[in-house]
Amino acid sequence: MDAAEFRRRGKEMVDHVADYLEKIEERPVYPDVEPGYLRSLIPTEAPVEPDSYEDIMKDVERVIMPGITHWHSPNFFAYFPAASSYPAMLADMLCSAIGCIGFSWAASPACTELETVMLDWLGKMLQLPECFLAGTHGHGGGVIQGTASEATLVSLLAARCKAIRRVQLLDPKKSEAEILSKLVAYTSEQAHSSVERAALIGAVMMKKVPTDSLYAVRGEMLKKILEEDKAAGLIPFYFCATLGTTPSCAFDHIADLGPLCNQENMWMHIDAAYAGSAFICPEFRPLLNGVEYADSFNFNPHKWMLINFDCSAMWVKKRTDIIGAFKMEPLYLKHENQESGKTFFGLKLSQSHWQIPLGRRFRSLKMWFVFRMYGLQGLQAHIRKQVGLAKEFESLVRADKRFEICAPVVMGLVCFRLKGTNELNQSLLKKITKSREIHLVPCQLSGSFVLRLAICSRSTEFRHIQQAWQHITQLAFELLQEHHH
Amino acid sequence: MDAAEFRRRGKEMVDHVADYLEKIEERPVYPDVEPGYLRSLIPTEAPVEPDSYEDIMKDVERVIMPGITHWHSPNFFAYFPAASSYPAMLADMLCSAIGCIGFSWAASPACTELETVMLDWLGKMLQLPECFLAGTHGHGGGVIQGTASEATLVSLLAARCKAIRRVQLLDPKKSEAEILSKLVAYTSEQAHSSVERAALIGAVMMKKVPTDSLYAVRGEMLKKILEEDKAAGLIPFYFCATLGTTPSCAFDHIADLGPLCNQENMWMHIDAAYAGSAFICPEFRPLLNGVEYADSFNFNPHKWMLINFDCSAMWVKKRTDIIGAFKMEPLYLKHENQESGKTFFGLKLSQSHWQIPLGRRFRSLKMWFVFRMYGLQGLQAHIRKQVGLAKEFESLVRADKRFEICAPVVMGLVCFRLKGTNELNQSLLKKITKSREIHLVPCQLSGSFVLRLAICSRSTEFRHIQQAWQHITQLAFELLQEHHH
Repeated sequence: MDAAEFRRRGKEMVDHVADYLEKIEERPVYPDVEPGYLRSLIPTEAPVEPDSYEDIMKDVERVIMPGITHWHSPNFFAYFPAASSYPAMLADMLCSAIGCIGFSWAASPACTELETVMLDWLGKMLQLPECFLAGTHGHGGGVIQGTASEATLVSLLAARCKAIRRVQLLDPKKSEAEILSKLVAYTSEQAHSSVERAALIGAVMMKKVPTDSLYAVRGEMLKKILEEDKAAGLIPFYFCATLGTTPSCAFDHIADLGPLCNQENMWMHIDAAYAGSAFICPEFRPLLNGVEYADSFNFNPHKWMLINFDCSAMWVKKRTDIIGAFKMEPLYLKHENQESGKTFFGLKLSQSHWQIPLGRRFRSLKMWFVFRMYGLQGLQAHIRKQVGLAKEFESLVRADKRFEICAPVVMGLVCFRLKGTNELNQSLLKKITKSREIHLVPCQLSGSFVLRLAICSRSTEFRHIQQAWQHITQLAFELLQEHHH
Repeated sequence: MDAAEFRRRGKEMVDHVADYLEKIEERPVYPDVEPGYLRSLIPTEAPVEPDSYEDIMKDVERVIMPGITHWHSPNFFAYFPAASSYPAMLADMLCSAIGCIGFSWAASPACTELETVMLDWLGKMLQLPECFLAGTHGHGGGVIQGTASEATLVSLLAARCKAIRRVQLLDPKKSEAEILSKLVAYTSEQAHSSVERAALIGAVMMKKVPTDSLYAVRGEMLKKILEEDKAAGLIPFYFCATLGTTPSCAFDHIADLGPLCNQENMWMHIDAAYAGSAFICPEFRPLLNGVEYADSFNFNPHKWMLINFDCSAMWVKKRTDIIGAFKMEPLYLKHENQESGKTFFGLKLSQSHWQIPLGRRFRSLKMWFVFRMYGLQGLQAHIRKQVGLAKEFESLVRADKRFEICAPVVMGLVCFRLKGTNELNQSLLKKITKSREIHLVPCQLSGSFVLRLAICSRSTEFRHIQQAWQHITQLAFELLQEHHH
């Protein structure tokens, strides 16, 4: 395929994409296929001679579409949103064409620099304390990670490195292995599974802190465990707070937890993967109060800020903490500007020291396009609209005595259930999944099986919320009828 | 921006991308900017009201392009190639539109299944032993990782988990911390820095194995160190072999190393990040002999197989080894087909247990488009053409008595230098970088400062090789003249 053919096929693809998204509502949101459906639809080996482009595009509809869960359907209410917008898609096309691998400043100056400036723009939108920004002559700065899981892991590894050094400074005879075996990380029992996984990877113990009745960790709960663990000779070194937990969008009390972590020399990382986008609205910003105590903060613009996956924004207060945990510099990655000591905001000129992979795409282009095409006001309007839709759904649920709301509706997530047994609610979810008109996933709260309805698609409107609720109540009615018989 | 505007802007972007790539040769390959150039060119904050699309596109040329190192210029010979092709870009547009997050089978059946089938297609192209494929009722299978660094880390963590369990089975009194402190991983002194970083993350010791005169590790070299380490009470558990090292594209002798690792109960991972693509050509496949002894194998189709970054292919012999090291399964990721015990090739239905991040894009679409649009023959032709160009460059260098070739030219990389001091060669590279006509990076081999010329761009032709050589010899001539004065 040459440039001329790409011009033709690319324009067809633009129309294909626009058609798909404009008519997405006509497709069942959840696919009607069984595991293993795809293999029988395609050959067992790659072709030796090229296939025609027409055949490939026919196969997209024949092979791929039947197995798609349509994340951008207005009837998709599962998990949390996966952001998507046209400006982000345009920027991604440009990113593909430039196709640079930004593992050092020299490998792609624009990629390295735009990323740092975009993270400053975004940090300012969130009113992050200046110490987290790169352009304020402080020691902080931002970086794009692939996912919140990676940001958590990076923060835990930096904390581990710092803790080992601190303990060895006080007692140089202690071996790394000995210290490692005493380190303890903490997180909420409601935290995402990736937090526990980060500890597993980092070979450190992790303890779950119990939450209050609203599923949030409070300072006193962490304090109690810390006292016990210190008395037992363990070394608390890391706490991962969650703002907007996955099950119910609960908010840990970082304004009490932060001072405690600081006092105990523990790294506090804040994972606001979903909810973080909302902090650009002044009415939600108070939930971020206490961030000034954190060592690192992360959220996913690829969830709720209209920037297609992947784009997870992470800030640290001291860049050297992160870089110190990862730095390796072979000759083929050195370059002249680095040797000459020229720096870019005092950075070592390479964000690849801030992350697990070495290679990195030009993801900040998507941020730049989206921030400029929407403006701060447009992004705020998007957040407010989706929170409003969640509130509308909450009202519908509250008006029906057969149902209950299971957690405060603060952002775009509603946790609800039929009053009754877990089995009853499991049956309701099975009916919903089977009908394929809307798509939800469950969670567990205090032993209850709970349904989660998250406002996900940019195209979800009030009518979709109403239809979803009618659909749910209709299925609940049928279910309750069956139970009576 | 609505669908109608996206149709217009998207088509303009397709032309913009085609124009950029068609005329890329007119741009200097390496940018003429100083660190920090970008900040002064754009505002310090995001706009409150939207900017116009026209202004953004003007800024792409004004702000971004001056800071781009053009990886797809035919005059780019640095690092290793970053793959790029029109079919991959088309597939990426579709991937953006579908915008699914494939962290479980239910979250996106097509994404989960196409990936497994594409890794089987690719495994067959490489003639991998059947035990690495998912469709052969074995215990193996493939997964797409973001980068080779992540694949290495994943393999090391799986090996760590397996080694700890094995030791504890023999001696249940030994603590994890005690075992961890005795584990040793090994790799070539020529291995990529990410291998050492994986050990750093995994909190295990890593030792560098010396290489022979061709920069390759041989079985006897590893055996010698293993004997010493076992005698000292250490527990060797992991060896990362490299096929195609970053400095000189050297090949470790896996056919001797593999049996040794098997005998010592060590996990052997093979990192063939760059060179792996070439194994689809029968004439290069013998370099992969011995892969049957490996526990995991990885290479980057995003380097040399025309599939845009990121797409790193990894296979394991026993899926359960990887899954066991990572598995966490909260309720919101469970789904009905999983509970019912239905499986897809015996997989636990979720590739997110095979990797560091939880979220994953629909990257197998790029593989599907590229494999079908090129066919095996087209991909082989691409590899052979680039190897041929490297051989042409080698001949030019060999014909000039002032220069020497520093390592065997097996694939698309030529390591060469002026006969003389390291300073002389450093000066030559500085001149090359400053002239911005071609772009190279150096490496260090046996203490010598060496220039690396890698055939990178799909659009590099023989005339570019000739021009590059004329340019290098011209600069060398000037340099040698200066030295004589």
